[in-house]
Amino acid sequence: MSNDSSIPVKALVLLADRLADAAARETLPRFRQSNLTADDKDQGPGFDPVTEADRASESAMRSILAAERPDDGIFGEEQARTHGTSGLTWVLDPIDGTRAYISGLPVWGTLIALDDGTRGRIGVIDQPFTGERFMGVLGDDFTQATLTRAGEAQDIRTRQGVGMDQATFFTTDPYLFEGDDHARFRRLRDAAKLTRYGTDCYAYGLVALGVIDLVVETGLQAYDIAAHIPLIQAAGGVVTDWEGGDCRWGGPVIAAGSAELHAEAMDLIVG
Amino acid sequence: MSNDSSIPVKALVLLADRLADAAARETLPRFRQSNLTADDKDQGPGFDPVTEADRASESAMRSILAAERPDDGIFGEEQARTHGTSGLTWVLDPIDGTRAYISGLPVWGTLIALDDGTRGRIGVIDQPFTGERFMGVLGDDFTQATLTRAGEAQDIRTRQGVGMDQATFFTTDPYLFEGDDHARFRRLRDAAKLTRYGTDCYAYGLVALGVIDLVVETGLQAYDIAAHIPLIQAAGGVVTDWEGGDCRWGGPVIAAGSAELHAEAMDLIVG
Repeated sequence: MSNDSSIPVKALVLLADRLADAAARETLPRFRQSNLTADDKDQGPGFDPVTEADRASESAMRSILAAERPDDGIFGEEQARTHGTSGLTWVLDPIDGTRAYISGLPVWGTLIALDDGTRGRIGVIDQPFTGERFMGVLGDDFTQATLTRAGEAQDIRTRQGVGMDQATFFTTDPYLFEGDDHARFRRLRDAAKLTRYGTDCYAYGLVALGVIDLVVETGLQAYDIAAHIPLIQAAGGVVTDWEGGDCRWGGPVIAAGSAELHAEAMDLIVG
Repeated sequence: MSNDSSIPVKALVLLADRLADAAARETLPRFRQSNLTADDKDQGPGFDPVTEADRASESAMRSILAAERPDDGIFGEEQARTHGTSGLTWVLDPIDGTRAYISGLPVWGTLIALDDGTRGRIGVIDQPFTGERFMGVLGDDFTQATLTRAGEAQDIRTRQGVGMDQATFFTTDPYLFEGDDHARFRRLRDAAKLTRYGTDCYAYGLVALGVIDLVVETGLQAYDIAAHIPLIQAAGGVVTDWEGGDCRWGGPVIAAGSAELHAEAMDLIVG
């Protein structure tokens, strides 16, 4: 576990930008190419696609980290986890939303998080096709959430003061909620003003941007959620598991634009 | 009903481009603005949002048509239908996917179709945030399907030779299928390789682009589907109602990248 004061957050923000740029050089040229093939990672009857773009994107980011931050750990989706000695871990999802990616839909993203052993400090969602980069930074003495597009960065904030009956609620796929969880999902859907599906990481960016209010999902891995926590926290929102605890290593997740809406969603999930 | 040879298709393609440009000048500046408010058009318990952007976008297109094509009919989502004398009708949806629009998600679009009284001749899906314009044209002596972005037009083709077990299937919301229709939806979902939700008009553009294979929906209005039929036909696909008939005035719809996949989907829907 590292001492807060030892983390050069601003330099690492620049490095996170470089990682995102390197990933985009692998993902964007392959997006919508007809020779793109998806392998099935799922050993069972499901379909869990991974493409050459996923692997190349993660490798590109790992190469930069190997050169620049050899003592940091790396927890990526496609390759074995490496434990570092610095107390810092980079959590990488080269393409979150591979199903969107192979469908040509620009709501996938490259996710980059920096964890200090206690909490996430930097979170990036990069969508190269739309040219959007969401970034949240929890520094020692500053907090910053931005959306950068075409070289212009704007500060972003979550939407406050929206109750569940006025909320826009996103989840990836309603059929991912099984058994009791499906009843929980239906309570959320019935209470929300508007429910949408199928947007993967992009939905978390929209919470940070303050245009939607709530994402609830289950069965996430660390690399699916690690980037979103500092991003949404830095923008004014709350991200926890379904019991209000730390979810940075995955599991069920509630991401809300405000503490009040987060509490309302927790109540609906408990039932 | 107009005589084919009387339709100046190429000039009308340029006009369709002008309509899309005019609509974008109204929709894009209001996209993701925090002062955007949505009224509820639904008289019942549902939520059918319409924004000032919808209204301004349709008005802008109607102004151009009033000046340039006063004898053509107009069938738009937001204003009363006008019947012309030329035999041509413009079918306009200023913002298809208003739910996506108010959620900040760039999968909404402006839909523009030209109907000659027998069939659609021009179909446009314009997504101003991503800068994508899908256009299909069925001329008297030429057929053309293009995707234009950043001033560059590329010819597009649907994907051929993909059976249902390899197909990517999109629909807006699984909960829009009620009663027997939900069983039909489940058969399609079970047969498809990959199912995605929540993309409105953008999914039809992806069929034309050849990166997904099938869209099945129900309860559509003419302005929800009119643009997609010439677009997907021009790109090599098939769009009909669930019984194989004309769907250009709305209802249930199958849009498939190939005739073979269309037939497979029809069989699954019949059950």
